[in-house]
Amino acid sequence: MNKQQLIEQIKLKKSFLCVGLDTDIKKIPEHLLNDEDPIFAFNKAIIDATAPYCIAYKPNLAFYESMGVKGWISFEKTVEYIKKNYPEQFIIADAKRGDIGNTSQMYARTFFEELDIDSVTVAPYMGEDSVTPFLTYEGKWVILLALTSNKGSHDFQLTTDTEGERLFEKVLRKSQEWANDENMMYVVGATQGRMFEDIRKIAPNHFLLVPGVGAQGGSLEEVCKYGMTKDCGLIVNSSRAIIYADKSERFAEVAGEEAKKVQEQMAEQLSSIL
Amino acid sequence: MNKQQLIEQIKLKKSFLCVGLDTDIKKIPEHLLNDEDPIFAFNKAIIDATAPYCIAYKPNLAFYESMGVKGWISFEKTVEYIKKNYPEQFIIADAKRGDIGNTSQMYARTFFEELDIDSVTVAPYMGEDSVTPFLTYEGKWVILLALTSNKGSHDFQLTTDTEGERLFEKVLRKSQEWANDENMMYVVGATQGRMFEDIRKIAPNHFLLVPGVGAQGGSLEEVCKYGMTKDCGLIVNSSRAIIYADKSERFAEVAGEEAKKVQEQMAEQLSSIL
Repeated sequence: MNKQQLIEQIKLKKSFLCVGLDTDIKKIPEHLLNDEDPIFAFNKAIIDATAPYCIAYKPNLAFYESMGVKGWISFEKTVEYIKKNYPEQFIIADAKRGDIGNTSQMYARTFFEELDIDSVTVAPYMGEDSVTPFLTYEGKWVILLALTSNKGSHDFQLTTDTEGERLFEKVLRKSQEWANDENMMYVVGATQGRMFEDIRKIAPNHFLLVPGVGAQGGSLEEVCKYGMTKDCGLIVNSSRAIIYADKSERFAEVAGEEAKKVQEQMAEQLSSIL
Repeated sequence: MNKQQLIEQIKLKKSFLCVGLDTDIKKIPEHLLNDEDPIFAFNKAIIDATAPYCIAYKPNLAFYESMGVKGWISFEKTVEYIKKNYPEQFIIADAKRGDIGNTSQMYARTFFEELDIDSVTVAPYMGEDSVTPFLTYEGKWVILLALTSNKGSHDFQLTTDTEGERLFEKVLRKSQEWANDENMMYVVGATQGRMFEDIRKIAPNHFLLVPGVGAQGGSLEEVCKYGMTKDCGLIVNSSRAIIYADKSERFAEVAGEEAKKVQEQMAEQLSSIL
């Protein structure tokens, strides 16, 4: 999916919500455990209920890998289900990969060729040749970690170098030597508040993937105030607050209601630019 | 496996070689393609031929994931095969994971509980709470990226901060607030030469996992000269130079011969400390 198509979806649905599919066998409703593939059954119901209110899905690879081979089957089925039934949805493989060139090439092959997913999250620590193998696919995106939502983001990402540049700023600037706002986005945590102003000085037009609204405590208003561009420029993710909003047989319905609430808040935020 | 057991294996075998199982369906001998599981068939033959000469195996997850579900099956079978037949071998899941706490917890569950692997490589960009979930398992190890073997290592890892500390040095120092040399090792590329001296100033006793000898051009002599400790303190990995040394039906035999050559060079290097 290219940038223009993504912007069109946001305008059409008045939403920039991404639903995070952090599906944990220990957290899904009990009655699903009798299903042949409980993880996929859960995802399918969540997707059907939330699709009208979101523009993206983000399966988190860790949750599928923790189930071994079975988990990979659930992951692949989930991706296929979205692609077949909701082809307008942007899919993010939240994998945080990144390795030497020939290895990153293999990861790119997995996510972009084998699974035909729109985007993959990548960690920047290993530098240019760990990222560029992901950039050679037309219509596919790297979503590079810049300033993450967790407490540990302070450990290294905020370190200031001798030029007065913080590490996350260097990541934003340097990576623009390899990529542009048509094939790269950045992860910026919703918990970072006014830091979005600093991000926008360096990446005024890039889309930002923003986790941390919901369970992690970030504020949608603040993210929009400091981070929104004339094209929106934001994909805001919520995982736990939506998918685990209810544990009864009504779980999917309630997830849909929660997604709708977030979508309505987003429509309000979008009213100034649409 | 704890540190003392690892040191004992190194002394016993006069080797600190790790064989990297970067098994690529496009590179394995053609006659294996008729096998029901060509990746596992290749690994099994390579393991049987090289086990006398190495103390560790490092399957690179990217190569298995690129095959989807089939790849995960091959990966799990490989790990089981090593654990059953060569329980003295140290297993490294080269995955370069790292995410917010609850996600890293899931990765730790996968590698340490489900698969009972000894260690996993982790990227430090997201800081403390992305690493600590891996540290709660007795006898298991985090192998944290410090100074990698690739060209892109210069992009961020060598950035000097206002305190005069380079990023990889900060990673080495900071991470010792969370872990010690009994549950953490560091990745340092063999291509980094004299930089091992700087590493040893901050991490004098930690084991280092050293990729980049062989296909990537690093020198074993230099690594040992600047990086070896009284307990060896090194696990040197070679992947392509060993496993793809020959493409005929003799591939495993030749891989064994190559591993033996490296082991003999290692025995020489170890003679000063054993």
